[in-house]
Amino acid sequence: MVPENILRLLNEASHVVLATHIHPDGDALGSLFGFGDILEGLGKKVFRYLDEPVSHIYDFLPRTVLASTDLDAALAFAEQARKEDGKVVFVALDCGDGDRLGASKESLLTLSPSIVIDHHQGHRKFGDHLWLESSCSSTGEMIYELALAMGGQVALNAAFCLYVALLTDTGSFRYESTSPRTLRIAADLVEIGVRPAVVAGNIYDNCSLSRLRLMERVLATLFVTKDERIGMIHATEAMFQESGASSKDTEGFIDFPRSLNRVQVAAFLKETEPGSISVSMRAKGQVNVASIAADFGGGGHKNAAGCRIMGKSIEEAHEALLKALRCAIV
Amino acid sequence: MVPENILRLLNEASHVVLATHIHPDGDALGSLFGFGDILEGLGKKVFRYLDEPVSHIYDFLPRTVLASTDLDAALAFAEQARKEDGKVVFVALDCGDGDRLGASKESLLTLSPSIVIDHHQGHRKFGDHLWLESSCSSTGEMIYELALAMGGQVALNAAFCLYVALLTDTGSFRYESTSPRTLRIAADLVEIGVRPAVVAGNIYDNCSLSRLRLMERVLATLFVTKDERIGMIHATEAMFQESGASSKDTEGFIDFPRSLNRVQVAAFLKETEPGSISVSMRAKGQVNVASIAADFGGGGHKNAAGCRIMGKSIEEAHEALLKALRCAIV
Repeated sequence: MVPENILRLLNEASHVVLATHIHPDGDALGSLFGFGDILEGLGKKVFRYLDEPVSHIYDFLPRTVLASTDLDAALAFAEQARKEDGKVVFVALDCGDGDRLGASKESLLTLSPSIVIDHHQGHRKFGDHLWLESSCSSTGEMIYELALAMGGQVALNAAFCLYVALLTDTGSFRYESTSPRTLRIAADLVEIGVRPAVVAGNIYDNCSLSRLRLMERVLATLFVTKDERIGMIHATEAMFQESGASSKDTEGFIDFPRSLNRVQVAAFLKETEPGSISVSMRAKGQVNVASIAADFGGGGHKNAAGCRIMGKSIEEAHEALLKALRCAIV
Repeated sequence: MVPENILRLLNEASHVVLATHIHPDGDALGSLFGFGDILEGLGKKVFRYLDEPVSHIYDFLPRTVLASTDLDAALAFAEQARKEDGKVVFVALDCGDGDRLGASKESLLTLSPSIVIDHHQGHRKFGDHLWLESSCSSTGEMIYELALAMGGQVALNAAFCLYVALLTDTGSFRYESTSPRTLRIAADLVEIGVRPAVVAGNIYDNCSLSRLRLMERVLATLFVTKDERIGMIHATEAMFQESGASSKDTEGFIDFPRSLNRVQVAAFLKETEPGSISVSMRAKGQVNVASIAADFGGGGHKNAAGCRIMGKSIEEAHEALLKALRCAIV
């Protein structure tokens, strides 16, 4: 399954610089820290580069202290390796697009050869060597296969990280992408010693009081059309202030209108600052929300897309979006 | 893994009466309908007895129309089998206790030999032959092993039912009970053709508008102690009426206070009728909620227990319970 050239480059490397996408999620961080440990187990030196410090949501991951946001240090690490006649490779994990590497993209890609390991549908090719498996649930799943192919050992810390990757990118094994292979890898990881309840506890029982306070306020905004096919919620700047919550605390809120049994399309409008409203949309197959998002200058997938509406109040944005959704649903 | 005597009795049976516990959940119904199909595939005649019709929550399960709440018909089915020189067995699925068979318990247990297949910790023995696997995540997991041991075929309908059993009884593979075997069986079922996203959609995206309306009201009652170690919510009769929701719509609400990162013990008080308050409690290891529940005449497990408080207003019940929780937590 792992392309020969990528396997060879990684086997031959003495030094590896790992990076992932900006605003890293569970798959990005789980893959990065899991792969880091596996590579070190194979005797390689690893630099774990992150665009921003690990958010409090994922600071339960083991050995996050090893990550660095220092680009110069990453470049120096590669430079030093070359001086010592080592072989350096750069690996971009879980990036569907080069721009997702963030502001350091250009500098990071000077670290050649670069390997890109990704599972996103609609991946836009970048870097020197691409391994893309769009049928994989997660990059974490690919890293597990890669570890086996490299003859590496997946010890408990790495197994824990990869389980986080699988769990978060499949929505607790609920998404379409959950394959027999996904579940069998999860089984292997549990056999290594990962405790599913501990991982789930860290991810799903990590709620702040301000998040629940915001949730109550956001639920109060629930709007559904008469036929219940469109469901919308919103969060205003005032709600964030009253509840003490931040934009990150709204993760999963879109699932409230989406979970309604008659709803075909759900939207969540979030006033991140006055005059700037970020919109998330979810569909259940009948409506293509990517094309609605595109009309507002955004993008995404058929069933999950987003956009930003500028210069409108939340009520105006709600009306404009509702109109577009009504048109799409007929 | 399957006890010899149970395997023999089932292999020899020509007629099987299946039953499960009252207020059946996903594991109870998934196991019953899954096993029913597997047994019919083996050429046996099956009577699927239920104490009450399948609730709307689970009516997406295939072939629920084959279930019957007619006890006389179940007894006549067994009588007829005997007249035809057939061999009848009665199988109670997922019942931790004989009383969980409901009002028909005595009549059903006249159908001998009776086999009890269960996975509950603290199972109280009843019936003629018991197969108990308290390390199994679900009865569904046991039924899959049983099907293999009997040489039965798990076709798509049965696989779908068993997947529902596994998914619901592990809280989407999140509970402690999720083992490598659980995940490998899930993988097998997906390989047979079950689509995880379809099952999850039926179970988790089946929310009514009234449930969300009630959720908002219940979240507004959130109370946490200063140290945030105790979290409590409640639903009054008035809230049920205003939202149009019923008691069944509150499933999972206890997870809101429980999910708070500092909360050690969570409680949900539900006024089912004036002067009768049902209490659910959840703990995260430090507090034994079973003993608190016992003080109020209820029971349960260390981390999940419940009781009923009579003759008190919701405020009085809240205060009484809070006092007990404060004492337990120090």
